[in-house]
Amino acid sequence: MTQSLSFDPHCSALFTDLYELTMLQAYYAEGMQATAVFELFFREMPPQRNFIMAAGLDDVLAYLEGLRFTEDELAWLQTQGGFSDAFLESLQDFRFTGEVYAVAEGTVVFPHEPLIQISAPLPEAQLVETYALNQIHLQSLAATKAARVLIAAEGRTVVDFGSRRSHGTDAALKVGRTSYLAGAAGTSNVAAGRLYGIPIFGTMAHSYVQAHPDELSAFSAFARQYPETTLLVDTYDTLLGVDNVIALARRLGDDFRVRAIRLDSGDLAELARQARHRLDGAGLHSVKIFASSGLNEYKIRDLLAAGAPIDGFGVGTDLAVSADAPEIDLSYKLVAYDGEPRMKLSSRKLSRPGRKQVFRVSQEGRMVHDLIALHDEKQAGQPLLEPVMGNGRRLPSGCAPLTQARAHAQAQLAVLPAALKALERSAPAYPVSVSDHLEKVTQEVTAHLQRRLVPGKTP
Amino acid sequence: MTQSLSFDPHCSALFTDLYELTMLQAYYAEGMQATAVFELFFREMPPQRNFIMAAGLDDVLAYLEGLRFTEDELAWLQTQGGFSDAFLESLQDFRFTGEVYAVAEGTVVFPHEPLIQISAPLPEAQLVETYALNQIHLQSLAATKAARVLIAAEGRTVVDFGSRRSHGTDAALKVGRTSYLAGAAGTSNVAAGRLYGIPIFGTMAHSYVQAHPDELSAFSAFARQYPETTLLVDTYDTLLGVDNVIALARRLGDDFRVRAIRLDSGDLAELARQARHRLDGAGLHSVKIFASSGLNEYKIRDLLAAGAPIDGFGVGTDLAVSADAPEIDLSYKLVAYDGEPRMKLSSRKLSRPGRKQVFRVSQEGRMVHDLIALHDEKQAGQPLLEPVMGNGRRLPSGCAPLTQARAHAQAQLAVLPAALKALERSAPAYPVSVSDHLEKVTQEVTAHLQRRLVPGKTP
Repeated sequence: MTQSLSFDPHCSALFTDLYELTMLQAYYAEGMQATAVFELFFREMPPQRNFIMAAGLDDVLAYLEGLRFTEDELAWLQTQGGFSDAFLESLQDFRFTGEVYAVAEGTVVFPHEPLIQISAPLPEAQLVETYALNQIHLQSLAATKAARVLIAAEGRTVVDFGSRRSHGTDAALKVGRTSYLAGAAGTSNVAAGRLYGIPIFGTMAHSYVQAHPDELSAFSAFARQYPETTLLVDTYDTLLGVDNVIALARRLGDDFRVRAIRLDSGDLAELARQARHRLDGAGLHSVKIFASSGLNEYKIRDLLAAGAPIDGFGVGTDLAVSADAPEIDLSYKLVAYDGEPRMKLSSRKLSRPGRKQVFRVSQEGRMVHDLIALHDEKQAGQPLLEPVMGNGRRLPSGCAPLTQARAHAQAQLAVLPAALKALERSAPAYPVSVSDHLEKVTQEVTAHLQRRLVPGKTP
Repeated sequence: MTQSLSFDPHCSALFTDLYELTMLQAYYAEGMQATAVFELFFREMPPQRNFIMAAGLDDVLAYLEGLRFTEDELAWLQTQGGFSDAFLESLQDFRFTGEVYAVAEGTVVFPHEPLIQISAPLPEAQLVETYALNQIHLQSLAATKAARVLIAAEGRTVVDFGSRRSHGTDAALKVGRTSYLAGAAGTSNVAAGRLYGIPIFGTMAHSYVQAHPDELSAFSAFARQYPETTLLVDTYDTLLGVDNVIALARRLGDDFRVRAIRLDSGDLAELARQARHRLDGAGLHSVKIFASSGLNEYKIRDLLAAGAPIDGFGVGTDLAVSADAPEIDLSYKLVAYDGEPRMKLSSRKLSRPGRKQVFRVSQEGRMVHDLIALHDEKQAGQPLLEPVMGNGRRLPSGCAPLTQARAHAQAQLAVLPAALKALERSAPAYPVSVSDHLEKVTQEVTAHLQRRLVPGKTP
């Protein structure tokens, strides 16, 4: 039996990798408090993806505003050894005081484009790495997957059903949030509904039918309680379940107001067709068909391509864990310290130096090309990184409500080149180039670093 | 900007799918309060897996003990419409009062074997479905992945480095917990270290090196602060980084106490060999080599098969998200209500009726065969499901500390048939059979249900 959760990981300074704290103590000892700029970006597009939808900024900003070490946490750190009293004392007043630039939640982004740029005294910008990556990773992954599912559903209702298989409670809440952000109608998760003010969906499980003597008794009892409900018809035999819905309609007459049936197993396309046929044959044209059971964007596309008369989809596991691409290679890299551009040269893990801006060029209402440049360059196109926090406090631009992010996501999908909406990797990729100036600075810093790579050389 | 997290999802009754609450209100209206038995199991082994290591029980039991609706939550539910005042009032006193049988955390399990069995008045056993699945799914997934990594590492140190890419904060904490449970040395996540009392690891990132004028200055400053540290050598060029470690050793003489270097990019096998060669050539035989960078069980196996002189592994993303198998098809199904066995017949989603027990038969210190039977059968072998909670309170057997679960996991891996330790799917699968009695009851209940499948028939 472990101790119960005694802290909120969303504002605990201890939700971090240990190396952040060991580095902080070294920075403290060395007096390294100058301004550092870190950028959060990914290098490679995950499998099957043509875009990533950025999300998670709101939680990162809330974390930065609330970040502090409690007495309790500092006392515990002291018991761990390795941290000096002077350093731990300095953490009592630790606050995030920096500035943040970021792309708005719901923006589509591509490799090497910064999603967030944090400028702050080095220790502050360093400590927040783990949480910032954790949240932007999860939420961008989930928003991207949800956007793909929405594209496949071609305007039909999509509901997040994934809480039981998402990776933990935080993921369940955030998948609910980002599904809605990307355009889903809502989520089955009640806590997510409350926390984010988003619509919640749900009616009955197989256990409800099983607990009754037979299916029609269950349908009858449930419809008495919820006249406009959705009835789950596949507990025993899907088409006989549909027949029981029709039997209930006959019994209730004008009082029958059931809105939909749900199919949750078997050949959904064929069962939907036969169910529609039986419902229509009984005059129940207004009863819609909702489907669930191992769905994802590929299966939804195939169902609709096969003409399956399905009006809405509950999408669970595949959405919740982004099953075909459960990770993005998101990194958080130092790009400047004390006014000087910085980079690393590790093989295949290059990061370009300097504080950046991304300019997005559009033509005839479609985005056509992005340019990554240094932040003070004048370039054509719309700058994607906007200031969202200054002096550790959110700016009005950092307070976008979820509904605004949702509208922005829809607008982004509307201007996305059509080829990028494919569910498989489209060739060629969206064009992203680097400004001449950034290329020149990259080469200069590389040359500078390589000159210093004589072993044992210290200035 | 959304409202801040005002509740702990780990004991909030609202961390549930909406359909649990709509069913609860129907059960309330229908007076269905008899004892229900639900079992949590999976039907198919995920890709590449030969066993699943069960985990997450401790959190489920903590949740069941703490589960209640706050006034705040009930007031919010009332605003949602659809819930009667009488029903919401009844939830004020909602507590979990049932009993739980479960396999111990760290036990290896196979398809159709219950991991947890919950017996309680129907509404109580129903409501807890979402959280129970969410936690057992995440933690069993992570424990299984960690066990595979540990098998591949053949006794070398393994540390969880995955917090930045795990799906949210809860997953980061639980991956730390279950990695340790499965045998890892610890985690980089400080909060997980505090919460679960497990060792935490971490020294420096590339940004620390980048923030200094050159690598040797960085190494020198860091080793002054942490004489027995691990130095990250690949920020600019791995082998020149090793040379800088050697230069530091020459400079410090007897004061050089650095314990290890860390490689984090490039061809790890070749770089480890060359680094070892250079370190040994400089007499630094005691400096160990630690590797990270996109590792998983397959890459670790290949590195060791290639003779790479690596002493320890930091495993991040692949472990944190169980990248090659990010989901288990875990279900929570009603198997009995009011003393009667129940089942569903949905295509390809059969669940066997009745409260069960799993008997594990061993020969010569190895497990050789499991038998799934009804709970009151007398069968050879060790029963895996043990009582862990009664009347809503943990029994002593439900209070196993994490260290005990860790020892149990090690013991389980020690008796696992050697073929099941393969990293790819081994054929044949571990033999699991069903008792004659359970088979007979399955057929009887199926026949009973099929007789009732005449459309429109209600008793």
